[in-house]
Amino acid sequence: MALRNFAVLILALSLATTERAIAGDPDIVSDFIMPPNNTKVDGRFFTYTKFRGIFDGVPETFKVTKASLTEFPALDGQSVSYAVLQFPANGGVNPPHTHPRSSELLFLVAGFLEVGFVDTKNVLYTQKLRVGDMFVFPKGLVHYQYNSRPDIPAIAVSAFGSANAGTVSVPLSVFATGIDDEILAKSFKTDVHTIEKIKAGLAPHK
Amino acid sequence: MALRNFAVLILALSLATTERAIAGDPDIVSDFIMPPNNTKVDGRFFTYTKFRGIFDGVPETFKVTKASLTEFPALDGQSVSYAVLQFPANGGVNPPHTHPRSSELLFLVAGFLEVGFVDTKNVLYTQKLRVGDMFVFPKGLVHYQYNSRPDIPAIAVSAFGSANAGTVSVPLSVFATGIDDEILAKSFKTDVHTIEKIKAGLAPHK
Amino acid sequence: MALRNFAVLILALSLATTERAIAGDPDIVSDFIMPPNNTKVDGRFFTYTKFRGIFDGVPETFKVTKASLTEFPALDGQSVSYAVLQFPANGGVNPPHTHPRSSELLFLVAGFLEVGFVDTKNVLYTQKLRVGDMFVFPKGLVHYQYNSRPDIPAIAVSAFGSANAGTVSVPLSVFATGIDDEILAKSFKTDVHTIEKIKAGLAPHK
Amino acid sequence: MALRNFAVLILALSLATTERAIAGDPDIVSDFIMPPNNTKVDGRFFTYTKFRGIFDGVPETFKVTKASLTEFPALDGQSVSYAVLQFPANGGVNPPHTHPRSSELLFLVAGFLEVGFVDTKNVLYTQKLRVGDMFVFPKGLVHYQYNSRPDIPAIAVSAFGSANAGTVSVPLSVFATGIDDEILAKSFKTDVHTIEKIKAGLAPHK
Amino acid sequence: MALRNFAVLILALSLATTERAIAGDPDIVSDFIMPPNNTKVDGRFFTYTKFRGIFDGVPETFKVTKASLTEFPALDGQSVSYAVLQFPANGGVNPPHTHPRSSELLFLVAGFLEVGFVDTKNVLYTQKLRVGDMFVFPKGLVHYQYNSRPDIPAIAVSAFGSANAGTVSVPLSVFATGIDDEILAKSFKTDVHTIEKIKAGLAPHK
Amino acid sequence: MALRNFAVLILALSLATTERAIAGDPDIVSDFIMPPNNTKVDGRFFTYTKFRGIFDGVPETFKVTKASLTEFPALDGQSVSYAVLQFPANGGVNPPHTHPRSSELLFLVAGFLEVGFVDTKNVLYTQKLRVGDMFVFPKGLVHYQYNSRPDIPAIAVSAFGSANAGTVSVPLSVFATGIDDEILAKSFKTDVHTIEKIKAGLAPHK
Repeated sequence: MALRNFAVLILALSLATTERAIAGDPDIVSDFIMPPNNTKVDGRFFTYTKFRGIFDGVPETFKVTKASLTEFPALDGQSVSYAVLQFPANGGVNPPHTHPRSSELLFLVAGFLEVGFVDTKNVLYTQKLRVGDMFVFPKGLVHYQYNSRPDIPAIAVSAFGSANAGTVSVPLSVFATGIDDEILAKSFKTDVHTIEKIKAGLAPHK
Repeated sequence: MALRNFAVLILALSLATTERAIAGDPDIVSDFIMPPNNTKVDGRFFTYTKFRGIFDGVPETFKVTKASLTEFPALDGQSVSYAVLQFPANGGVNPPHTHPRSSELLFLVAGFLEVGFVDTKNVLYTQKLRVGDMFVFPKGLVHYQYNSRPDIPAIAVSAFGSANAGTVSVPLSVFATGIDDEILAKSFKTDVHTIEKIKAGLAPHK
Repeated sequence: MALRNFAVLILALSLATTERAIAGDPDIVSDFIMPPNNTKVDGRFFTYTKFRGIFDGVPETFKVTKASLTEFPALDGQSVSYAVLQFPANGGVNPPHTHPRSSELLFLVAGFLEVGFVDTKNVLYTQKLRVGDMFVFPKGLVHYQYNSRPDIPAIAVSAFGSANAGTVSVPLSVFATGIDDEILAKSFKTDVHTIEKIKAGLAPHK
Repeated sequence: MALRNFAVLILALSLATTERAIAGDPDIVSDFIMPPNNTKVDGRFFTYTKFRGIFDGVPETFKVTKASLTEFPALDGQSVSYAVLQFPANGGVNPPHTHPRSSELLFLVAGFLEVGFVDTKNVLYTQKLRVGDMFVFPKGLVHYQYNSRPDIPAIAVSAFGSANAGTVSVPLSVFATGIDDEILAKSFKTDVHTIEKIKAGLAPHK
Repeated sequence: MALRNFAVLILALSLATTERAIAGDPDIVSDFIMPPNNTKVDGRFFTYTKFRGIFDGVPETFKVTKASLTEFPALDGQSVSYAVLQFPANGGVNPPHTHPRSSELLFLVAGFLEVGFVDTKNVLYTQKLRVGDMFVFPKGLVHYQYNSRPDIPAIAVSAFGSANAGTVSVPLSVFATGIDDEILAKSFKTDVHTIEKIKAGLAPHK
Repeated sequence: MALRNFAVLILALSLATTERAIAGDPDIVSDFIMPPNNTKVDGRFFTYTKFRGIFDGVPETFKVTKASLTEFPALDGQSVSYAVLQFPANGGVNPPHTHPRSSELLFLVAGFLEVGFVDTKNVLYTQKLRVGDMFVFPKGLVHYQYNSRPDIPAIAVSAFGSANAGTVSVPLSVFATGIDDEILAKSFKTDVHTIEKIKAGLAPHK
């Protein structure tokens, strides 16, 4: 009976983990964190296959695909994860954002890319990358990537030093979550009309 | 002679620290980090007096005053720091920003304040605070504070779990560092004109 | 049904956390740690209101009021907490103590205070503070605060770089927990009679 | 003059870092670690270009190319690094090894690969990977990769959650560093002749 | 009832911990981690008695006895553990191995010992130790100990900076877990016959 | 020339380290921390020989001998250290103290010992140990050891999960560093006369 309860408990813990939040990413005191409801794991547990074919093409709008704690539970406690970034030609953009829990090491595997980040002294660092180049975005700073080439899509693989780096999108976080117009207008030293215009552009069903 | 060089060395290291960058904030293996060019410290080294009178009034625009690693070197390795936030009445605002290296625990010591933060799922959490209230802004997330009261200034003391939490101001970081108009327009799904308008409002000598 | 069990489980975990012990304070791999038995949180979860009015007066004996992990669960994983220290005039004292899990950054918001700490080489560092001054007590070292002013109470706000800094009171820990008289007499190089006298003074109902 | 000494000092520190040893990989209390002898950095400092063309072909024997702290100093304090692994067809092998300071997240970008690791309970986990698959090797455990395909070379990109994961090659570490034959024979429960045979095969100029 | 469930829950968690895996070894935010199914602990919980008599003799083959997280649960979160190593005379050997989660500080309490480790640049460091000597094996590196004295057994106490340092035995991990002969032959630049010979010598019931 | 300066620099840094203070004890990103003024290390660097003969006898008063960062520089970054504790018969005592940077795992290698610690809820945990027993004192808490046996000396080896655990002796820290009598009298709820008596007993040349 304790065993049955145990399964329920661990299932519950598992849901809690993947849906919401749990403390982590420091060193673990075991080789790896076992999946919650298996009595036995084999090599498949340490394998992630959802990225197959990801280099075959690029969608019409910028797309990020993650292999992090949520998608690949074996990463729990291993302090590393991946994302693949696909930029269509002629303006594909990953808007300004931060990762609260990790720096990002971008590796350009196709095309060309303009990248930039801003440090806490408000200095902008930019670079034009070509295939095979890497760029490191320091932890927690605002950064973006942009494909200005009219006809060549770009693909990048990004590594993170956390199983769950997290992403704070500046446009969505600031202008699409309901922060008061007045507060934003004063913050950006502009008028409410301009704030509303930006909000309208970023609204989900526009 | 080694001694004289040592002083020079340590002075240099000290400049390096305060002006630029050094690894840190993990536990230290000593009681405290000695100041670089003193052979002896006393109680004054552990004391910071620049906040005297800070509660006496509030300036005409929002102001943040820090006691962090740069201002108060004894904090090195102690993983804690303070800021005092002063909000004038009738719209004093601390614009949306993040702290890359720490959460923030705000303690309202005068007036009223509206606060909010957005998590990595783009959910906005807001609260109206009164004197004596605390609010915790989780690490690395976009947050703001706003004083909507027409006649009562507000003052808050904020504690950070890092000697150098750092600040990424969204308006300045994104719109006042020279990021290309085209990239911003595409990122915020608006036109270049709107981006330029916001940039103009945030430009230093406007 | 799994859901109901889940609630019970999480409630149990919650009790475990607040009453006793859980691993923590390193970085978390989520924005924040959800409260155990809520399906949804809003801004109130991140707010602590029990400090309202704390600056209105000072009790007759020294009093410390904490806002740490136990009182304010949203601090879990955020590595920061507060305490307010109230010192009556004419001898209000916070006896020698240590915090095992954090340094302390004291900010004097009313009155005057004499403070001191002793490093692991048994060097005493003291300072007299006035309103607006800060003092940092390094992690794990013995320290005290004392209000010698005959007529002015003192109030300090202290920040800690841990959600649960913990307190080891030297008088209570050493002389009010039942450590053998003989051991204490030998340790303090005094006689059993003196130990018993100190113990009597510190006993709860004396 | 202090400035000139400073440059020398920092240059010296820099040599020390890249040649030998420095404490690190915990969080840093700055945005990034400045390069030692520059007064100013721009985007190029955060860029690494030595991987250009790395996907163009595969050498005749297994080859690992690193972008870690030594090759790419901007990674200092950012807790992330890359390696590209190139496996010729028909038996290209990365011999059993460990990384003392990080787990490894391998991403197969060309060909097929057989991988395996052994946990501290001496359980072997193996998997056959195809293009687009990922496999995580937990921190500090013995693992290998092998290309058994007779005609298709394989290329993998591996991410590490440390700027300097380090590599302990089992064959080289154990049989090519001069450990006494007798000790090895007893350790591997074999005779000295067998040990000498293996040593001979692994000797540098054989 | 919540209490009874709580006990079950905690028992389950306990099984999970000792049998398998849980995140840990960073600082804890409590004094200690309570045992799962006790309502109350006393001094016995912090005591480990299974090492009594361990210095009375040395078995016929090398033996390591651990006091780590599994054997002594009170070590959870305390980042320290012990092992006692017993080496018979005339060739007692602790074969090449690594500890993935800690360095090792060996203290020789009886006899003589030859020790060595190999760093990540494949440099071998050796030393001959006598009673009372210490030797530190850095974290994650291959190391061994050997008693060449024909008639004097040796005993060492080793301390680890983790409650669960873990052990990766090179002979067992590489040659006794079923890694393919072909892969090993290529890795060690030898023939399959030699690999099979070593495997046979290390097989459990040989 | 840069090389000569480098030596001076590193010598200076070395003095700084051993005499005073440096950040540390988190993971390092190298195998080990090189000694400052050597171009080459061998096995002797990782060896400490000053404990030879330490088990041969016990001095007339309690004595602690450390092998920590200061005495044994190779421990830098390895997060582990030792102390040997020697207790004469008939009342040898290690007075109440704390270690600010580590828990302590005591291993009794001769005689009998009474030990105790007090948690942050002021609960005393005691135990009587015999040869071969271990006891773990959690990090940062007040603890003591006492040899009540009239005729048998005791010897213990203690391991710490830090290269520099540090020691805060309660008697010396509180009563032998010059803390004001009035403050201590109020803290211990006793009179100034009693404080002065204890101070006199603990004064160095009494």
